[in-house]
This record gives sequence, C-alpha cells and structure tokens, in this order.
Amino acid sequence: MPRYKLTIEYDGGPYMGWQWQDHGPSVQGAVEDAVERLDGGRRDVYGSGRTDSGVHALAQVAHVDLTKDLRADKVRDAINFHLGDHPISVLDAQKVDDEFHARFDARERRYLFRIIDRRPRLALDRGRVWRIPVKLDAEAMDHAAQVFVGRHDFSTFRDTQCQANSPEKTLDLVRVTRVGDEIHCEFSARSFLHKQVRSMVGSLVEVGLGKWTARDLQAALDAKDRTACGPVSPPDGLYLIKVTYPDN
Amino acid sequence: MPRYKLTIEYDGGPYMGWQWQDHGPSVQGAVEDAVERLDGGRRDVYGSGRTDSGVHALAQVAHVDLTKDLRADKVRDAINFHLGDHPISVLDAQKVDDEFHARFDARERRYLFRIIDRRPRLALDRGRVWRIPVKLDAEAMDHAAQVFVGRHDFSTFRDTQCQANSPEKTLDLVRVTRVGDEIHCEFSARSFLHKQVRSMVGSLVEVGLGKWTARDLQAALDAKDRTACGPVSPPDGLYLIKVTYPDN
Repeated sequence: MPRYKLTIEYDGGPYMGWQWQDHGPSVQGAVEDAVERLDGGRRDVYGSGRTDSGVHALAQVAHVDLTKDLRADKVRDAINFHLGDHPISVLDAQKVDDEFHARFDARERRYLFRIIDRRPRLALDRGRVWRIPVKLDAEAMDHAAQVFVGRHDFSTFRDTQCQANSPEKTLDLVRVTRVGDEIHCEFSARSFLHKQVRSMVGSLVEVGLGKWTARDLQAALDAKDRTACGPVSPPDGLYLIKVTYPDN
Repeated sequence: MPRYKLTIEYDGGPYMGWQWQDHGPSVQGAVEDAVERLDGGRRDVYGSGRTDSGVHALAQVAHVDLTKDLRADKVRDAINFHLGDHPISVLDAQKVDDEFHARFDARERRYLFRIIDRRPRLALDRGRVWRIPVKLDAEAMDHAAQVFVGRHDFSTFRDTQCQANSPEKTLDLVRVTRVGDEIHCEFSARSFLHKQVRSMVGSLVEVGLGKWTARDLQAALDAKDRTACGPVSPPDGLYLIKVTYPDN
C-alpha cells in the first residue's frame, strides 16, 4: 500500500476541529470520507496534530495509505473532487516512504494568530481574525512575548483538559508584528500543549492593552498555574501555517 | 437634517449588489433598514456607485440625512448595531456639508481584483478571489494592461446592459502585481462603465495565459466592439477599495 503525504488547507469554522469526533463534523472525518470514495474502503488519515474547533490551517500535514497505486497529483485532485462542498483543499500530495508519519516525524509546527484592532465590526473577515475594539501596542507585545522563548513549564498556558504528560515545551520563536491594519503573532515549536497558543495570545493582548507589563507576563509564566493566565483568545484568528519534517 | 458620510465595508456574496433591487437583498437596502431603526423613519442612503452582485467593498462611500443630530461615531456604532447579522460594517461616519454628494462629488474610484493562480480548489478564500488553475504571467499582464491608461472608447469592455451615455472613460492607473501567491490588478478612474473592470480583468487573464499578446489586447480595445472582449471575470475577486473626494 503506497503512503501519501497530504498538505491540507481548511476553514475550521464548520468543524469540531481536525480530529474525528462522535458529536460533530471534523476535518479528518471529511477527508476520510473523500478518501473512501477514492479508494473504495475506509482508510485512516493521520494528521500532524489536532487543531481545535474553529481553528484554520493553511498547511496541515497528514498521511494516508491507499490500496490503489496512483500518481500523487491524481490523489490530490481526486480527494479534492470527492470533498464536494467542504471548505477543505488538498494543496499537495507526495508519495512518501512507508516509515513517514505525519505526527511523529514532525520537527516544527508553526502557528499564526491574526488580530485586528479596530472598533467597527468585521464584514469580510468574520471568523478569520480576532477583533479587539481598542488599539494595541504591538511593540510592547513583541517585547514581552520573548519571555516565552526557550524551554519552560507552560502550566499557566495549558488547558485544564490537556492530556500531555509534561507541561514543559520549547518555544523556538515568538514574533508579534503589525501588518497593515492587523497584528500578527507567530509561534514556532516542535509541539504545543492544548490551547497553548490561544492562552499565550490572550495574555499578550493584556500586554497590548497596557493592562499587563512584560513583568506581569513573566510572573504569569513563573506561576506555573492555570489561574494566572489571561483570557484565552477565541479560535477565529488561529492558523496552522507550517509543519516541518527532517527532509524539508 | 444633518448629513453623514459613511465609509462601508461589505461582503458582496449574499447580495444582488449595492443598489436596491426588488428581486433580492441589496447592501443599500440593508443599510437603509438599519438607518430606519436608528432614526425612526425611512431615509435614502446614496452610494458612490453601484457594485454588482457578489462584488465586495473595503471602502464604499455613501451619504444619508438623519432627523436626529447625533455624534458621528454614535451614528457609526448605531448603524452597525442595527445591521445585525449582515456582513456589512460602517468603518467610519463623518458629519458633512449639506452639499456633499457621495456619487456626484467622487473624483476617483479605485478597484482591486484578486486572482490566485493555483490548481487546488479554494478553502479559506472562497468567494473572495478568482482562482485560475494554471500559472499566469503577471509581468506580461501588467505590460499589456498599460494600453488601458488614458482616455479611450471602452465599448469592448462594457456590458451590453450598460446605461452610460458615452463609452468613453479615462483610466488613470492600471497595475498588475504578484503579491505572494496572488495576482492583484488595480484600476483607478473617475468612473467606470458597467462590468468594465471585470471585462478588462477577463481579457488580461488571456494575456497572462499566453493566449493573447499585448497587441491582441490593443486590437480588442481598438475594435470598440463588445464581441472582441475576452471572457468576463466572475465578481468574486473584485473589491471597491477607495473613493476619493475633493477634500481628502
């Protein structure tokens, strides 16, 4: 059975998240349905990781084994065809080694969080960005955010439901920049805890509003206590933008 | 009755266009409904011009006379409140002179057309950009597009239903640039004919595909004949991005 690596874009809005759920639609379930129509039987599609309900992806990575031995571009086009009305698109398919695993082999995951700081409500970007109705100090956010870089106990920025064994993670990059009318927060790490990015973004917004100083953010991290976290951001502005593997 | 100038963003997808229609929802109708709830009676909202069904705006401009004398930012917030679920947002409201007219005083209208040239279908940008499944030569498009600049008879690039008295218009700027994965076509003129931008974009794509040369585009313009036009683009990628008035 040939193995294919898929790069997938999706609008997370209509889904309970990437992962298959018994109480609502998932991106994984939609892709597995499309693969079933292509390959004539149920195949597991393994993602690089879960994304939460409402979280988008510009480039989620997954792998799947098919019984049919097809050209990779035909696999891409056929899955897209069978996805029908789902706001999901396979951007790329590659034949890969049987050993390749989308989750276990991933070396880096990169997320983007889009914020827009304007008072008027959203028309074109509903569900795509988090609107904060007052001006934020993006420079102060970027400065404070650097406390996250490196290996830390992220207990403060971890959902109470998080199932990871350890609260320790290593953040390789945090960057907050103003891009036009928006503020973009980028995060890169080998892996993240459950709701870690949204927890960090929510706390960074407290800094941007002037409610927290960089010291307060440092104290929240040092507390290693979920109750020290700022308000958790909504999922709307969050995008999984890149997953890196040893080969690329 | 104080007059207010409104700057309005909208997703054109759910509407028959800006202008009030008796056979479907319009942006103008939705704004007039909201103004009625604010001011307690029906008021006409005059736009800088029509946008077609499915065409978006980042900054349509309109004016309205209210009986209530309210602070401009209160007018903005109240109309937004009363717009409810409509994907329409008043970005700005200003009190203006009684003589100000959103349509007759406009000196420049600027449109952006977003194209993405990729084979995989759209997930996140559905209805927001025109997808062309093969690569386009943006430089060739930009070069050829310069034939549009200046005063010309645009009969070739005008809808057969166009009601303007003259097919002559002056284009002040045409620019085609590659921006990331997208190709952006910008057009600026005092005013445009019906479907002129979509007709020009459709013909420019023929150039980008290598089907037409710059000479072919020139010949199409010189023909002054609607049948010489390339395929008209869909409305999805079209945005009214700016309307300029003498004061600003």
